[in-house]
Amino acid sequence: MKKLINDVDNILTESLDGFTAAHADIVTLGEGGLFVRRKTPKPGKVALISGGGSGHEPLHAGFIGHGMLDAACPGQVFTSPTPDQMLAAAQAVNTGAGVLFIVKNYSGDMMNFQMAAEMVDCDNETVIVNDDVAVENSTYTTGRRGVAGTLIVEKIVGAAAERGDSLEQLKALGDAVNKATASMGVALTSCTVPAAGKPTFQIGPDEMEMGVGIHGEPGRRRVKLASADDIAAELTGAILKDLSLKAGQEVILLVNGFGGTPLMELYLMVNSVRKILGDHGLKVARFLTGPYVTSLEMAGCSVTVTAADAATLALWDAPVHTPALRWGV
Amino acid sequence: MKKLINDVDNILTESLDGFTAAHADIVTLGEGGLFVRRKTPKPGKVALISGGGSGHEPLHAGFIGHGMLDAACPGQVFTSPTPDQMLAAAQAVNTGAGVLFIVKNYSGDMMNFQMAAEMVDCDNETVIVNDDVAVENSTYTTGRRGVAGTLIVEKIVGAAAERGDSLEQLKALGDAVNKATASMGVALTSCTVPAAGKPTFQIGPDEMEMGVGIHGEPGRRRVKLASADDIAAELTGAILKDLSLKAGQEVILLVNGFGGTPLMELYLMVNSVRKILGDHGLKVARFLTGPYVTSLEMAGCSVTVTAADAATLALWDAPVHTPALRWGV
Repeated sequence: MKKLINDVDNILTESLDGFTAAHADIVTLGEGGLFVRRKTPKPGKVALISGGGSGHEPLHAGFIGHGMLDAACPGQVFTSPTPDQMLAAAQAVNTGAGVLFIVKNYSGDMMNFQMAAEMVDCDNETVIVNDDVAVENSTYTTGRRGVAGTLIVEKIVGAAAERGDSLEQLKALGDAVNKATASMGVALTSCTVPAAGKPTFQIGPDEMEMGVGIHGEPGRRRVKLASADDIAAELTGAILKDLSLKAGQEVILLVNGFGGTPLMELYLMVNSVRKILGDHGLKVARFLTGPYVTSLEMAGCSVTVTAADAATLALWDAPVHTPALRWGV
Repeated sequence: MKKLINDVDNILTESLDGFTAAHADIVTLGEGGLFVRRKTPKPGKVALISGGGSGHEPLHAGFIGHGMLDAACPGQVFTSPTPDQMLAAAQAVNTGAGVLFIVKNYSGDMMNFQMAAEMVDCDNETVIVNDDVAVENSTYTTGRRGVAGTLIVEKIVGAAAERGDSLEQLKALGDAVNKATASMGVALTSCTVPAAGKPTFQIGPDEMEMGVGIHGEPGRRRVKLASADDIAAELTGAILKDLSLKAGQEVILLVNGFGGTPLMELYLMVNSVRKILGDHGLKVARFLTGPYVTSLEMAGCSVTVTAADAATLALWDAPVHTPALRWGV
């Protein structure tokens, strides 16, 4: 295992120390290191809290700040955070308007966030993200997995929270954006969880895992490596089948790198996918390209499409000031 | 070779098509695809032009826009662009105040930018970036290599150009920032140039290349993989030896990923490096962390330190609106 680390047991702590030092203008480490929180809470605003296993950086702590999350609870690598983390985060960032939890649909995350939701003594709602159309009921999940579409839910709901929407409005908006969002990914190589010390899965030099999850869990099928155009056609085809969009629909397109794929290849994928979307009469109104929801050093990418009307695009465009996503400020 | 591509011969073209489509609000592909340019030129402003081999994305085209570059000339992967590219870019973006070329110190780039500088029929100056303290006179270079510090030169000089500094002022500022900047990197794995189809260098499962260049060219020595703290000590030690800073000096710290190293590890390196800088009495005034000057999918990172006074920090903080770096707008 080749990683820039000191001690496998301290990776998360040391990385969070570096992260919070580098972004001390935006974020603060919560008490006991249980969570990362927005430095300056906004009184009267519904607090948005997300979290999950680490190893997907910049998700989630990289999206804390003005116009996005108020706190994130990082678990160990690919391991759910615990209910006490979410509880501490909620107590720290609730300013009276309640808390919205945004949770990726994995069994461990779901169970622990649900326990926290029952224990926390303030109004709260939960938005479950399950945008991955690749498979149902996979290794860590009942139902569909939550993947890169989580970023889109967090950005759009975060903007609505910042302008003062109520907890009920945000819950409804989050559910609607999740429903309008679909993703699918492909892996060319495995990732290596530090504590395991060896690759999560074996894959041949000419193979790819089509429909891979963001923990390297199995997708639809193991096949021979194909061209970018063919990969784009399969990913985008599955997404469009799920969303059933009409010609003329505007969409947000996220081509997300899993951590080990160069930006040059991601933009090449953007080129392939945008042509397919155009052939279906869809208009890509906004693009986002880069390693935003990663799987450690896994090579590969995912495609996410969100159907967006003018109001949704306005929320996407609203100012955001976080470590990993920033515009308008 | 596992890459998200269609045809090795078309990687650059297809990637640029995706890039310019995704960022059509900021950039435009120049005539004949020879360069990428800022969509809206600013009359009376000195035009900043950079370029070099591709494979280092987001450098350079990702840094085109308000407050940074006016054009970038991408060569094939790890191959210098040609003089006609720089000439076409200069003719397209010069608005009468002249052109400043920002060139990384590699023999091919130097020769071709020099030819363009002699051919272009407007006032022009060249800033040569040679921030890499690892080695002198390496594979593609006479003198020191230009690496991730190029980003810092482009940002600071770009801000000064945006406010209206003259060509002579910008040339002097660029030389000064380059002199105040030092970098060194380490690779844990090789990259694979698409046209070659195999790794640029062989490296054992327990080895690292200390002082590696951004094309995978050799550094100081091949050694056993060390802890993040030990790596940070060697990189930062070499940088501080070069810069000879006094206690109390403010610095900009860039921890740059080469393309295959997760953000989690980069922030862990930030944590190691900031402690060392603190032990030397230096104050990290600004942090930047991420894959900004990459070597395709190479695992590893570089550390860059720039000594910065208040005026330099103000230029660093000035609004920038490019595909890869954005704040204040």
